[in-house]
Amino acid sequence: MSISVTDQAHIWHPLTQHKTSSTPLPIVRAEGAVLYGENGEEYIDGIASWYTAMYGHCNPYIIEKVTAQMKTLDQITFTGFTHQAATILAQKLITILPDNQQKLFFNDNGSTAVEAGIKMALQYHHNKGAKRNTLIAFEEGFHGDTFGAMSVSGLSVYNGAFEDFFLHVERIPVPQEDNLEEVLQKLETIVETHACAGFIYEPLVQGAAGMKMHSALGLEEILKRCKEHDVITIADEVMTGFGKTGKHFASLYLETYPDIICLSKSLTAGLVPMSLTTCTQEIFDAFLDDTISKGFFHAHTYSANPIACAAAIAGIELLTSSEMQDNIDRIYKKHTAFAKAIKTHSKALNVRVKGVIFALELDTKMERYGSLRNQLYTHFMSRGIALRPLGNTIYILPPFVTSDAQLDAIYTAIEEALDVF
Amino acid sequence: MSISVTDQAHIWHPLTQHKTSSTPLPIVRAEGAVLYGENGEEYIDGIASWYTAMYGHCNPYIIEKVTAQMKTLDQITFTGFTHQAATILAQKLITILPDNQQKLFFNDNGSTAVEAGIKMALQYHHNKGAKRNTLIAFEEGFHGDTFGAMSVSGLSVYNGAFEDFFLHVERIPVPQEDNLEEVLQKLETIVETHACAGFIYEPLVQGAAGMKMHSALGLEEILKRCKEHDVITIADEVMTGFGKTGKHFASLYLETYPDIICLSKSLTAGLVPMSLTTCTQEIFDAFLDDTISKGFFHAHTYSANPIACAAAIAGIELLTSSEMQDNIDRIYKKHTAFAKAIKTHSKALNVRVKGVIFALELDTKMERYGSLRNQLYTHFMSRGIALRPLGNTIYILPPFVTSDAQLDAIYTAIEEALDVF
Repeated sequence: MSISVTDQAHIWHPLTQHKTSSTPLPIVRAEGAVLYGENGEEYIDGIASWYTAMYGHCNPYIIEKVTAQMKTLDQITFTGFTHQAATILAQKLITILPDNQQKLFFNDNGSTAVEAGIKMALQYHHNKGAKRNTLIAFEEGFHGDTFGAMSVSGLSVYNGAFEDFFLHVERIPVPQEDNLEEVLQKLETIVETHACAGFIYEPLVQGAAGMKMHSALGLEEILKRCKEHDVITIADEVMTGFGKTGKHFASLYLETYPDIICLSKSLTAGLVPMSLTTCTQEIFDAFLDDTISKGFFHAHTYSANPIACAAAIAGIELLTSSEMQDNIDRIYKKHTAFAKAIKTHSKALNVRVKGVIFALELDTKMERYGSLRNQLYTHFMSRGIALRPLGNTIYILPPFVTSDAQLDAIYTAIEEALDVF
Repeated sequence: MSISVTDQAHIWHPLTQHKTSSTPLPIVRAEGAVLYGENGEEYIDGIASWYTAMYGHCNPYIIEKVTAQMKTLDQITFTGFTHQAATILAQKLITILPDNQQKLFFNDNGSTAVEAGIKMALQYHHNKGAKRNTLIAFEEGFHGDTFGAMSVSGLSVYNGAFEDFFLHVERIPVPQEDNLEEVLQKLETIVETHACAGFIYEPLVQGAAGMKMHSALGLEEILKRCKEHDVITIADEVMTGFGKTGKHFASLYLETYPDIICLSKSLTAGLVPMSLTTCTQEIFDAFLDDTISKGFFHAHTYSANPIACAAAIAGIELLTSSEMQDNIDRIYKKHTAFAKAIKTHSKALNVRVKGVIFALELDTKMERYGSLRNQLYTHFMSRGIALRPLGNTIYILPPFVTSDAQLDAIYTAIEEALDVF
């Protein structure tokens, strides 16, 4: 049977209303920044397959490393055992993470990295004998789809069936140039009137909200206030991590580092699932006790899967290479020039760039998954460009290996979109 | 730096109280049913690395298939796109799953498969305009460590910091020969006094509880009652799936099939993380609507990761081979003979076998992670046998490729343990 026939018969796709959505497009091959359809059609992967394949699809260097690992040690229980791929990855990550991060806890995806982060914050206080039952999060934040992760996500327009079961969360607006006092005041009120365990946030860029960007200075002030009140700060760098904002991690733009960082997506260079919840020595130490139950009894079977670790090691080697750093700089400059050119267009409401992330907000109302947004998606696909507009925001988050010509093709398709929509 | 030095410096292991636990043992290589330490020490992997590596570690057939996939298509966004590894896997799975299962929803681990299953049950009723806010689960069940999955797990001795945030769950005992009427009465009372959305259970064998086994006939009656009340039945086959109970799935021992099945662990043959939440056409159809929000807006970035799908396809090909089916039968017969020999031992409280799962409950009290249990662990490791006793239960769940000699070595170590403890 053809791919599409079986797909329609048996596959339930994520984020898809199958009654009204169009048939998923079969992709048969990928290389570098390009996806190939069944008849050889080419699509530039303008969002790096949801921000994962940053070093290009089917990268020979990564494949070589992963294959070697797969032939040596594929999987081992990570309770009672350890292995070299995990420790090499730890060494490499500790070198590039904010320098207060000392411990790595392994998970399988962004949602579970966030669940572990929330649980660490709650149990940190619980182990110290304090009962803190409230979490703080940004409006329009997105942190995943498991119950804990859904709870802290502000973007819950499609969570109507689950909201009765959420953790207690108080929200603050993201800090901008003009609202910082108001945000800090609201934060202060929340901290004074609730027993706050932790604050979770996407640093500098909120991905699912439409690549919305906020003030580093403002975030810095929020983090300082949280630390004064022993509110554990949890940076969700699942999207922003590994070079996408121009630095290895968005948290490195600040002087106040988070207590906990969640990582996934391009952590494994677009090969296989894995995530990490990293933390400070202080967080870790709060779980050390002669009482066993003060430990962190959270586990996933494939924790620190050696194959995923091998992919992550290769990814970090590529990220820190001068070639890839030059690519990041090159794309940033190209994005900036394009932003400058397009921002005066009558349909451009807002244009923003951070590292390799480019976002253009159109001066028009669009439902998140409405028909206008779908037409925009189709517009790009018909031009061989795979982008996924979020509501009225067109964004690009290309693999670092995307060429200038490929970037120009994406920009041209966006300019054409402005003429059409 | 050595593996152990870096491990101690930077790695936070799951299910580990780092203050009192012994140093994790470095494993450098694995092949078939054997794990190798830094100095060439050999350990028979008596629990298949948490029930994943059922076809043997570093299996050349699986490596070949995964390598080919990795060179062709490593990763693709599974919203809007599809690919052949996912559809071939769907075809193969639909053939062996209980025949009411028609749709596959992809996740990354057991916890998130369970989260998706719970969410499907809640939203199924929500989409039909009913508000059902209670879940039913077995006492001592284990379903994972995210908030939704923790909520339905009865084994929550270490979840003190999180229990205030759990979903509403009512519990029933597992059905045994002598308590069925009582269990059914309790179920009836729960269903009459609560708005029950779903019932989640590990069919026939509760893994983390200590490989506890219950009556298929009793479970059948429970499922029938649930279906009469439109309570969605969710079989958590994360541990039991893929041949371990002697049939491809434990649910196949019953005539009443579940509405939803959760799969993970050996789904990907011990290579990389992936999980599935499968369901009936009826469940899927309840999400089809012109209203977008009636769709299932749950997603993980690496959903249907092609590399994981390739591993799963190879795994099912091996599972359904006559060679592997013969292995399952051979191990079952060896286990049964050993059970018969050991059950009269004065320290054997209960001995049970289901497929390749063997469990021996010692007539002694042990804390789940207490020192006696740890001594037992050390006893086995010192004899080159990797087993992880659960409290006072020693169990074996070996790779299907474990040889008769390797099984005999495990049995001998268990007999020796009975003399010591």
